Amino acid sequence: MPGTSSRELPSWNDCAAKTAIVAFVEGCTRDGPDFVAAPDRIATFDNDGTLWVEQPAPPQFDFLLRRWAQDAKDHPELASEQPYKAIVERDMAFFERLAVQDPAVVATLEKAMARSWAGTTPAAFEAEVRVWIDTIKQPRFGVGYTRLVYQPMLELFGYLKANDFRVFVCSGGGRDFMRVFAEETWGIHKENVIGSAADYAFTDGRLLRSDQLLGGLALGPGKPAHIFAQTGRLPVFAGGNADVDIEMLTVSSFSLLVNHDDADREFAYDKGAERSLAKAAELGWTVVSVRNDWATVFPRDGSPP
Amino acid sequence: MPGTSSRELPSWNDCAAKTAIVAFVEGCTRDGPDFVAAPDRIATFDNDGTLWVEQPAPPQFDFLLRRWAQDAKDHPELASEQPYKAIVERDMAFFERLAVQDPAVVATLEKAMARSWAGTTPAAFEAEVRVWIDTIKQPRFGVGYTRLVYQPMLELFGYLKANDFRVFVCSGGGRDFMRVFAEETWGIHKENVIGSAADYAFTDGRLLRSDQLLGGLALGPGKPAHIFAQTGRLPVFAGGNADVDIEMLTVSSFSLLVNHDDADREFAYDKGAERSLAKAAELGWTVVSVRNDWATVFPRDGSPP
Repeated sequence: MPGTSSRELPSWNDCAAKTAIVAFVEGCTRDGPDFVAAPDRIATFDNDGTLWVEQPAPPQFDFLLRRWAQDAKDHPELASEQPYKAIVERDMAFFERLAVQDPAVVATLEKAMARSWAGTTPAAFEAEVRVWIDTIKQPRFGVGYTRLVYQPMLELFGYLKANDFRVFVCSGGGRDFMRVFAEETWGIHKENVIGSAADYAFTDGRLLRSDQLLGGLALGPGKPAHIFAQTGRLPVFAGGNADVDIEMLTVSSFSLLVNHDDADREFAYDKGAERSLAKAAELGWTVVSVRNDWATVFPRDGSPP
Repeated sequence: MPGTSSRELPSWNDCAAKTAIVAFVEGCTRDGPDFVAAPDRIATFDNDGTLWVEQPAPPQFDFLLRRWAQDAKDHPELASEQPYKAIVERDMAFFERLAVQDPAVVATLEKAMARSWAGTTPAAFEAEVRVWIDTIKQPRFGVGYTRLVYQPMLELFGYLKANDFRVFVCSGGGRDFMRVFAEETWGIHKENVIGSAADYAFTDGRLLRSDQLLGGLALGPGKPAHIFAQTGRLPVFAGGNADVDIEMLTVSSFSLLVNHDDADREFAYDKGAERSLAKAAELGWTVVSVRNDWATVFPRDGSPP
């Protein structure tokens, strides 16, 4: 293992995944058949389950459900409508239909998002996310969600940046939600965050959120499309952990798939990742075992990279 | 004039505009009331008439008209339809209605763009723009259009970057058109180019251009909306030259307006800039006189910054 990478990826055990990462990056940066010109060195990473804990539910879900529970409390007439009804009645089966992108469920969530934020400014939304970051604790670990970023992935960001990669996050989750904490948590600028987003209009001197999405959801085939729109390229290095990352991982030269197999330190599950794990075996993607490959899972002090 | 700025902006004469630029940038970067944290240092620039020559017509127009003239030749039945009819008949009045965003004219152009490129890959479009860059000469100066970038603006990009600004271009023109030459001409990455763009879909393993715009045109109020979508912020430094830049210049802390008043070395005109010049006077924007403030207009050797 070359010295540089060992120094820069200290939370990675010596393992096949680390060896593959280092070999790929060294190939990209060294004269030879695998050299990649610096402008083309785009790395993209999914967020939920790739950069931070997504169990028992994706963190943004916690944010949304709290807001909509409050809306249902303030406006009792909403309690008969979805998704408020499911929240009030704790009908988790309703939300599980979101995971499979049931169009009817997705539509109620889009409508609820528009109801909560259409016509508001970016600053109002950012302030609301900021309160959530600063006050809400993840139920199992008892710390704020942004403290549950994966330390090995932050080190990977640093290693890639040190080798002139430009690192982007591309998540089906909310672009503007992630941008609130991207700089302090990931050490990447807001413009390096790609995700599902509402369209905004500039009206009477202010940006106001519309009730429409800008482009589609950044999920599945939406990931390469959103990445191209933002960067003008497709990634040469991509990391994900789920079936909705398959297209992004397929277009990339190097593909990393995080396998959640550590019930002690994090969670063990493959629900929603069955097809991606099969694709990894079929196409020779690099699979990362949380249990075996990561010496440390979370940052010790929650400080930024 | 501090030494640094004089060294870095050699093509700018000592003038009020240069003094204002340097004072603003030094205020942003120095402890004090005008300090701007590095993550917020976003600079955005219009392209046509701000970064390169836009007379007798915006360069992308030359690219489009050549393509559509060829289409009309290959498919004679198109000659009775707009915009092909206007091209065949050299009816320039038709295209002048584009400058005022006549919706009927804009619609015919969108339809013609979809006819030319819907269903094609990014690589096919890029190759077509590349041929245009490498072979077509601007009629007055007899060199390729990308040689007619303004040297003082390239130096301003360098000066801003040296002070930890991230420089973006935001043009009503085509995002994917500009991204072909952005890196070699402006020294900024493709992801720092914002513009009007077709939506793309990832289908059967390939990105294919759709016949729809992604978001609206990046003109007028579309500029702050597109800049926010791409960067998550509004600019603190903005440069433009026309009425369609007013909204972008208004949201920025520092606003630079290029006034084309040099018929000898470039062009002298204020058509399409009347309102922006009035706004500049009203709001105290920094107006740059090409004739008086720029010692050099074009790079001597066309080399990148």
